[in-house]
Formats: sequence, structure tokens, C-alpha cells
Amino acid sequence: MKLYDTPRAANPRRVRIFLAEKDVVIETVPVDIMAGEHLQEPFARLNPLKRLPVLVLDDGTVIAESVAICRYFEETHPDPPLFGRDPKEKALVEMWQRHVEFGLLVPAMHAFRHIHPAMRELEVPQIPEWGEANKEKILSFLAYLDQQLGHGDYVVGDSYTIADITALVGIDNLKLAKVRVPDELVRLKKWYDRVCSRPSAVL
Amino acid sequence: MKLYDTPRAANPRRVRIFLAEKDVVIETVPVDIMAGEHLQEPFARLNPLKRLPVLVLDDGTVIAESVAICRYFEETHPDPPLFGRDPKEKALVEMWQRHVEFGLLVPAMHAFRHIHPAMRELEVPQIPEWGEANKEKILSFLAYLDQQLGHGDYVVGDSYTIADITALVGIDNLKLAKVRVPDELVRLKKWYDRVCSRPSAVL
Repeated sequence: MKLYDTPRAANPRRVRIFLAEKDVVIETVPVDIMAGEHLQEPFARLNPLKRLPVLVLDDGTVIAESVAICRYFEETHPDPPLFGRDPKEKALVEMWQRHVEFGLLVPAMHAFRHIHPAMRELEVPQIPEWGEANKEKILSFLAYLDQQLGHGDYVVGDSYTIADITALVGIDNLKLAKVRVPDELVRLKKWYDRVCSRPSAVL
Repeated sequence: MKLYDTPRAANPRRVRIFLAEKDVVIETVPVDIMAGEHLQEPFARLNPLKRLPVLVLDDGTVIAESVAICRYFEETHPDPPLFGRDPKEKALVEMWQRHVEFGLLVPAMHAFRHIHPAMRELEVPQIPEWGEANKEKILSFLAYLDQQLGHGDYVVGDSYTIADITALVGIDNLKLAKVRVPDELVRLKKWYDRVCSRPSAVL
């Protein structure tokens, strides 16, 4: 089993944090995306969508998607559970992981890719107006997430889950999108300090 | 347990098809989105994100997200499995359900909402250039999906799963986005006829 990984990108980081929280160590193959290694053979044959991370199982099966890779390890290494423990909790974790993705992580990526000059040749067509529209969506979602964090220490109650991982990576990607978390979102800021104190956060 | 549902919208349809495939019947509360009922109390209090579908459990827990609702029923009604059967299959279904969502269903919604005149007051700012950019993404993804359908009768091998449901709803939403499936994607067209022959497809 091999994990094709790269530093700095958001989705590979989600998987690194997830594996650290599970205490799973696997062989890693570094891919240099700054040098465009993911756009060429042999990587582009492994994943024609040309994105990272990618997990290749011992039988050759290719799992080329971050949450799908996390799901695989949730099934093979159930402890600690990071997708919830019973039907209700699993549904709530799925809901919040997706809310955070569509309300924060994906909009942060769009804001970055459609505004930053360095992305002009990678995001074609680059549409700054669309990038700006995403900043509004993010601010509105952050207020909603702050409210949710009034219910417990983590995004879903009192257990750390994949929803926290997606939210942490989303917040850290706001720097690229040039969006700041408003000071009045006190619960969100406390939660951020809490998840950042975990050893996995530095990965 | 109650499902807040509405006809015509893509995400509520995903849940209706999923429940029909599981042979699960539950109480439904219709919400008239054409009349803006989802934007007002009492629905807007139930789901401050003001979107459908929403499942309310008997203990009052609110599951306000389509895939999360499906996940809940996968856990409580495991047969037939629609999210995969073992760790590898579960990872592949998760991967393809997400690939189809990000490559087809979400871009189809963006193309519709950012181009169609009827959406001008709902999608603010409406950015036609972004809508058009999504059409390109869709066509490229459809060719990739057609290739995948060379490996079996369904999106993931020979079992019908939630990835097929997302793809079916995505294809049907292409009408709104004014995108046609190219005639040369023969495997995709055969798959479409196959999933449309299931009784759940008319929901």
C-alpha cells in the first residue's frame, strides 16, 4: 500500500491529519506538484484527474480522492472512530463534513484560484468576480459554524471527527483566499486553538 | 421521523431514489420552494441554511443534507447496500460519488444558476462566464465517466450504488444547464438507459 502525497496542498493534508489521528503509518511517495509531476506520466496514468492524494492498495486498486481514502482507513482501522459511532452520529458527521466542505473549504479554494495572480495559468478562465463572490459565502458560513460550536468542543458534539479536519484545513486555507476570521466569532477561534493543539495539526 | 421534501430539485430527488431502492417508506412533509416556503419560518428555523431535503428524527435531531440522510438509512437499513460492502468497495463508492458530484452534479447546478435568466434574483451575483466555464468541466468529466463505465454495468463495477444515483440526477440536471451528452459516449448512454429502467428513476 502506497500513499502519493505532496506538501502544502489542502486535500493531501486532510489525509495526513486523518492517518495521524488513527496512528496509522504507511509508505509515502512524494509528488512534486510545483514541478508539475502530477500532470505527467507515470502519475497522470495512475489518476487521470491529475490530483492528489492517491492511495494504491496492494492489489493495485487506486483510491484517488481524499475523503474516500479516509473512509478506507475508517473501515480497516475503526479506532478512534472519526466518522461517528452510531447511525445518528454518522449522519451528523457526514452532514457537517459536507457543510464545511461546501461552505468553507471549496469556496476558499475558489477564492484563491480565481483571484491570485499565481493561479492565472492554472485556473482557466480565471474569473475574479467569482472569487470575490466566494468570500461572501465563506463569511456567512463561518458565522453559522461559530453558532454550531456553541454545542460542544468539536464541530459535532464532544468528539473530534473528520468534520474538524476539514474545518481546520479550510480555516488554514483562508490565508490563501485573503479572508480573516472575524474577531467576534469567539467560539470558532477557541475551537481553532483547541484543534491546533493536537500533534496532527502541524502535518 | 419526517422527511421535508420538494419535487423538481436535485438533492431531494437523490434521497427519494435512495429510499425507493432501500424500499423504505417514511412520512413526508412537502415544502413549496416555488412559493419560498423554505426561506421562511418554520422551515428556516429547522434548517438555517434554508435548503432541502431535511430529515427530522423522532428525538428531534435534524439531518439537513442529502448524502447524510442517505448515510443514516444505509446504517439503519443495510440491505441492499448502496455505499459498498467492504472497505475497498466503500472507498470506491465514496470516491465515485464524490467525483460525480464535483465533476457533474455541482457544475450542472452552477451552469444553470449562473446562466438562466430565471435564477438572476436567486444567484447573486449571477456570473454567466462562470456558468459557461462549468459546461467545459462537465464535458470533460462525462468523457471520463464514459471510460469508467467500460468496467461494469454501473459506476462502480456491477452493483447499483449511490454513485449511480448522483450520476443519474446529474445527467438529468444537464437539461437545465443546456448541456447535451455527446453521442459518442455510448457506454454512458447505455448506462443511462439501464438506470432509467429502474422504478426508482421516475421519482
